[in-house]
Amino acid sequence: MISTVQVIGIGTGDPGLVTYEAAAALREVDVFLVADKGDAKADLVEARRALCEHFIGDSHPYRFIEVPDPKRGPDAERDSTAYGAGVRDWHAARVAAYAAIIDQLPEGSTVGFLVWGDPAFYDSTLRIVDALRETSGPFEVRVHPGISAPQLLAARHAIPLNRIGTSIHVTTGRRLVQEYSPDLGDVVVMLDGHLACRDLVDQHPDLTIYWGAYLGGPAEVLRSGRLAEVIDELVALRAELREQHGWVMDTYLLRP
Amino acid sequence: MISTVQVIGIGTGDPGLVTYEAAAALREVDVFLVADKGDAKADLVEARRALCEHFIGDSHPYRFIEVPDPKRGPDAERDSTAYGAGVRDWHAARVAAYAAIIDQLPEGSTVGFLVWGDPAFYDSTLRIVDALRETSGPFEVRVHPGISAPQLLAARHAIPLNRIGTSIHVTTGRRLVQEYSPDLGDVVVMLDGHLACRDLVDQHPDLTIYWGAYLGGPAEVLRSGRLAEVIDELVALRAELREQHGWVMDTYLLRP
Repeated sequence: MISTVQVIGIGTGDPGLVTYEAAAALREVDVFLVADKGDAKADLVEARRALCEHFIGDSHPYRFIEVPDPKRGPDAERDSTAYGAGVRDWHAARVAAYAAIIDQLPEGSTVGFLVWGDPAFYDSTLRIVDALRETSGPFEVRVHPGISAPQLLAARHAIPLNRIGTSIHVTTGRRLVQEYSPDLGDVVVMLDGHLACRDLVDQHPDLTIYWGAYLGGPAEVLRSGRLAEVIDELVALRAELREQHGWVMDTYLLRP
Repeated sequence: MISTVQVIGIGTGDPGLVTYEAAAALREVDVFLVADKGDAKADLVEARRALCEHFIGDSHPYRFIEVPDPKRGPDAERDSTAYGAGVRDWHAARVAAYAAIIDQLPEGSTVGFLVWGDPAFYDSTLRIVDALRETSGPFEVRVHPGISAPQLLAARHAIPLNRIGTSIHVTTGRRLVQEYSPDLGDVVVMLDGHLACRDLVDQHPDLTIYWGAYLGGPAEVLRSGRLAEVIDELVALRAELREQHGWVMDTYLLRP
């Protein structure tokens, strides 16, 4: 039986964005379980290894186990009920893969999950850890917040995410167009593979967009401007970056 | 003319929640400008001093200048137009107070603002720094994100802030009741002096609340449960904590 699971928010890859608490937690982990999402995102696995080397070095022996990520079903792209069910099936497959490894670890091990950004924002690790408690528990769970991409987006553009007295709405690319209204306040969009905001241009041309990709990394790119004026350039730029790096991670804020 | 303004997110007071980048920025600051909000919040000023001593020590000489915070007009409690205007007047008075100090500092100084949580969430520092650029610029601005209270709330309760495929809405106590709808997704409430969620109980008794006060500090308190069942205890507990400490800082998540 393992003793502890550390869920560690590691920011966006820059060691400067890691907290002291998260760094200390890294040094307590015996085995890191890392989802291997295939070649395209291999440099994300590399970035995690580099962070561990940076913060742990030789101070504590640790292993890195790459767990092949189950494929997501095609229904994930359909309506939201199927989307939810698809995500849950995918989680169940991941849980089984992790449990098979955890159940082989030496008694009392500490297992670490490295979470890009913050485990609190659009990340499935905590749900997976809850499920692992059923199959492989009991164990202690410790969660360490990290700097998420929207926070870094705001810092790089030197803006707050809210205007005075208004709200911040954080949503996904797949929900944006159906739920957008200026009444939501400033809207942060995550997990958007297609710059869904292009479908808002006709109705809301005066929105200001603050956009950033590869935030916190050496390839960081920032753009901002009136949505109607910059969207075509952004769509082209994003396609070009994806081509060049093999993947792209971006986020943006829409301000009325 | 000063050379640089560093806007540094310092988390919620626990040195473990500071990032390495923020700690490095602290060590570059010559003069910290800190709003003095009166006796009741004196321990918040103390906590900032302690963080600076912890991270800077004798490595770099620095000064701490406490700037008396202008009083907020009574109209801040009225309708939202008056609220916005009240906040803007208050900002203008703060800007004048900071400019008077900055304009006396040695050429090339680096000025630091320490921001509780993250400068991106419901904090006026970046707006004040923008205004200072007009009166006392040009200077370089560098912004360092920090761990905000809602992130720590999520970490302590070991939950993400969103459910699968849904949104996160971050709002203030004064907006909550008028804008609440389960369609918003999970709702994070900040700056709520009166647990406004008590006015949602009749219509939404089955909401789950995850609440935390003094997050990251030695007096941290957590509660969670079905809103209708825990709200009376929370109201009493919050009043008791405010009495005991002289102030209370809390935040919560409402989950349908």
